[in-house]
Amino acid sequence: MRGYLITFEGPDGAGKTTVINEIIKQLPQSLQERTLVTREPGGSKISENIRTIILDPENKEMDDRTEALLYAAQRSQHVSEVIRPALATGKVVLSDRFIDSSLAYQGVGRNLGIEEVKQINDFGTGGLEPDLTIFLDLDPAVGLARIEKERAGQEDRLEQEKIDFHNRVYAGYRELFERYPDRIKKVDANLPIKDVAANSVKIIRKQLPDIFM
Amino acid sequence: MRGYLITFEGPDGAGKTTVINEIIKQLPQSLQERTLVTREPGGSKISENIRTIILDPENKEMDDRTEALLYAAQRSQHVSEVIRPALATGKVVLSDRFIDSSLAYQGVGRNLGIEEVKQINDFGTGGLEPDLTIFLDLDPAVGLARIEKERAGQEDRLEQEKIDFHNRVYAGYRELFERYPDRIKKVDANLPIKDVAANSVKIIRKQLPDIFM
Repeated sequence: MRGYLITFEGPDGAGKTTVINEIIKQLPQSLQERTLVTREPGGSKISENIRTIILDPENKEMDDRTEALLYAAQRSQHVSEVIRPALATGKVVLSDRFIDSSLAYQGVGRNLGIEEVKQINDFGTGGLEPDLTIFLDLDPAVGLARIEKERAGQEDRLEQEKIDFHNRVYAGYRELFERYPDRIKKVDANLPIKDVAANSVKIIRKQLPDIFM
Repeated sequence: MRGYLITFEGPDGAGKTTVINEIIKQLPQSLQERTLVTREPGGSKISENIRTIILDPENKEMDDRTEALLYAAQRSQHVSEVIRPALATGKVVLSDRFIDSSLAYQGVGRNLGIEEVKQINDFGTGGLEPDLTIFLDLDPAVGLARIEKERAGQEDRLEQEKIDFHNRVYAGYRELFERYPDRIKKVDANLPIKDVAANSVKIIRKQLPDIFM
């Protein structure tokens, strides 16, 4: 049985974590047992330590290139320690963010270039690509408003960025749809959570029918 | 007045920190005031946080590529926050380790390839090269023995590596001498500290005479 990597992307506040939990509930029991949920930045002890440095609002002096390299470092560790071993045993890995976040946030949001950011990530992951990416589509302003309401002053370093940055990130994701139309599929994240999850499961069924056999 | 970046390299236990401190004492007073001493991994708050993750002996699961990316990340931050601003104000920066350590330790010691490791570092530093690199030449076995004596069980994650690894690193440095014969100069690190420092100062005078004018 081969493993599958399905990643979830979208603006901050799109509800990725909640949607993934709801998706799991909607999957057949046998598939639930074969599923591993993980997240970035993070997913392993070392990667979570790196996450702390990246997201700490105190680290205001962080250079954009340092940020991009730290994301690549946590991803490298996440892939080698968690994702590849899971894929090797036939798991279906659902990851809350993966490579596309770096391409959109650092490549476009920070203006470092999609190609350049892809290169340092490929160094770390050996070029591992998701089998399917679900983009939870939401106006970044709506996402930011959700976060401000939920976190109320506890936003992390990237969430604290102004709307201009989040709009650039969104434009970055649009570039990625054009680049990877077969891999990245959009779901309207304005709908109620159950519907967002149901629409995501529909896409998984259509794109990766073998998983359900 | 232009700034200069002079880096110090060598096997663990070669005595880089002590030698740099002794070199400062042997420099003319005016030059001492223009000098900034710094170190890698580290050199700024964020970089020191990254250093902690890299060197923690508990982080045994660290993937070699994660390690290389973390070194590149701390260097990116070190360059943008400390080295470039110092060079811009005409300082002479003496750095205890820099890019060549990554090329030797990760590129050759970890078998990731000099070119590949250089690429991720150039992404972070914009390709900044030292004006001069002093290699404190010492048999890696002698260096390791010194460290074991000094630290007695408190060795960091890289120092704990076996002699095979340290021999590969040394071979890596040899490759770098061939690649950058004009930039990297060797000093015998078996001599007493004062002599190692005096020989280093001689090389600095010869290679970068403008600093002393």
